Amino acid sequence: MSDEPGRIMAGEMAEQPAVLRRILERGAPDIRAVAQAVAARGPRFVLLTARGTSDNAALYAKYLLEIRLGLPCGLTSMSTTTAYGAKPRLADVLVITVSQSGGSPDLVASTRAAREAGAITLAVTNNPDSPLAAVSEYHVDVLAGPEKALPATKTYTASLLALYLFVEGLAGGDGSAARALPDLAARILARQDEVRALAARYRFAERMVITSRGYGYPTAKEAALKLMETSYIPALSYSGADLLHGPLAMVDNVSPVIAVVTGGRGGEALQPVLDRLRGRGADLFVVGPRAQVEAASAGFVLPVDGLPEELQPILEILPLQLLAYEVTIARGQDPDAPRALAKVTETR
Amino acid sequence: MSDEPGRIMAGEMAEQPAVLRRILERGAPDIRAVAQAVAARGPRFVLLTARGTSDNAALYAKYLLEIRLGLPCGLTSMSTTTAYGAKPRLADVLVITVSQSGGSPDLVASTRAAREAGAITLAVTNNPDSPLAAVSEYHVDVLAGPEKALPATKTYTASLLALYLFVEGLAGGDGSAARALPDLAARILARQDEVRALAARYRFAERMVITSRGYGYPTAKEAALKLMETSYIPALSYSGADLLHGPLAMVDNVSPVIAVVTGGRGGEALQPVLDRLRGRGADLFVVGPRAQVEAASAGFVLPVDGLPEELQPILEILPLQLLAYEVTIARGQDPDAPRALAKVTETR
Repeated sequence: MSDEPGRIMAGEMAEQPAVLRRILERGAPDIRAVAQAVAARGPRFVLLTARGTSDNAALYAKYLLEIRLGLPCGLTSMSTTTAYGAKPRLADVLVITVSQSGGSPDLVASTRAAREAGAITLAVTNNPDSPLAAVSEYHVDVLAGPEKALPATKTYTASLLALYLFVEGLAGGDGSAARALPDLAARILARQDEVRALAARYRFAERMVITSRGYGYPTAKEAALKLMETSYIPALSYSGADLLHGPLAMVDNVSPVIAVVTGGRGGEALQPVLDRLRGRGADLFVVGPRAQVEAASAGFVLPVDGLPEELQPILEILPLQLLAYEVTIARGQDPDAPRALAKVTETR
Repeated sequence: MSDEPGRIMAGEMAEQPAVLRRILERGAPDIRAVAQAVAARGPRFVLLTARGTSDNAALYAKYLLEIRLGLPCGLTSMSTTTAYGAKPRLADVLVITVSQSGGSPDLVASTRAAREAGAITLAVTNNPDSPLAAVSEYHVDVLAGPEKALPATKTYTASLLALYLFVEGLAGGDGSAARALPDLAARILARQDEVRALAARYRFAERMVITSRGYGYPTAKEAALKLMETSYIPALSYSGADLLHGPLAMVDNVSPVIAVVTGGRGGEALQPVLDRLRGRGADLFVVGPRAQVEAASAGFVLPVDGLPEELQPILEILPLQLLAYEVTIARGQDPDAPRALAKVTETR
């Protein structure tokens, strides 16, 4: 343990409004230039490659690319190239690799193979001097500054915003709707006491289920990962539709459920799932609009102030990062240094 | 509960060797004809659409298509079309929808939208008279016969074999290596007493982690789903590489781990993960080759007799289906009818 458990993670979470502002003010022109260069190449299909937290950022980009641009997307099964030596045919394919460190050998190998196979390659990293940035044709720097806590927080929201601006650039938009984010993020992070009180609910939880739909689904996955790697509570994440195909049997009044309810079509599509959960007497914690929180057992009202649904994930994860942190502190553990983990994971 | 808990699921599991033989003898020519027709259309990308157990079959097909054919693949995020009305650009894209019932409205809507957007559409179902089969340009019947237990078993292995034969057909192979499957499956299912004894280990388990890599990864996901929907034990599945990115913190000597170790490159790539798990003192149950089982806490030796790695998933899931069944019986529950579930899930 460090002298003060969670000090590093707390500091990095608190930096997020400043990081978002930095991307909007300093990063946006470069991202737009990269997007224009990629758009000129006319990609017809996108493969997203990442692991861990970055994989959740990649999933967010998949929704954006499919919904905003109609580009069919896939998430890379990395072992097909690194273990099986597959020779993918990647003409007209944009391969986006997302990695905080840019240092994981399998990501570098997979991206190099993609480039050799004819793909347009883009790395999104927090380190422009990384091997991944070097091996990729294009690079976007998420400008989050050094991240030292093992649970990634500011690099996650930074990657989401950078990917949003990149997709906006591909679509010919200006991304101006994102300008509201830094202030909204600061307002959310200022409510840490509220989250601390809510965290007491999970002090003795043995498991959790986290669900959402559409743009909120990457948030559900990232919240589950954050809770697991800090508090060690097994947290299972499902899209609302998948939850009804099997795992719902597991939900009862001793398995708390967290639902991420975006203001928009994803939230509307989740409504039947919320109704089923309430009907089963599930303990339901909602991150979302006030009316949804009031209909649930507990929750965190997200101030979105008319923000487009596709930008809400950058805010939704913030109370859930705080929740993972507070639950972990309440359990007497150190969020900065989960057992068994290393910051750069050297999978091959 | 039915009169005899698990009677229906047990009967359907036992049918699997006969179902596999039926596909090889009666289904293969039709599947080859469909594959040749699709190959003539020259698809350049593949999107796979499915939910629940069928989603794990789709993931198996993703590995096959990427490794055997170098075709870039993605799994569909269905809500992008059903909730957000995305207009995907699907020229040269093969959309494969896998559904046991062929009746789920969102799968039908998503497949119809794909066809209208220019995709080549193929439905893989257990019901040639289903709405999904009707809306798709091509159809493969998995010939499993009616499935009545809520946990899908025979339709899963049938879907894997049908998808294998389809991909073999695309690749110009004859699929003859699959002929060994029915006898090997029968040998495995005859060892139910052995699995019953092993199931006692999990009578009181509060959670499980299931891991694999490469071709075995869909098996890990399907085993987790099967365990959850029958026994309600929260079972978390991760590719071995992802396990090292966070969730490993959660594994300790009270969280049993099941590893699916394929004989081949997937199993080799999993080796460092197995070493890390042993180093952490994890209770490790292995389904795989004898040497791997002997190095673990417990396990089930899979007779593969030189079967190619890509066919092993059709066998690997069998002892894990039996395990889910036996653990559920040991807990005094009925595997045939998990609470809260319906056979055709009407997500929209």
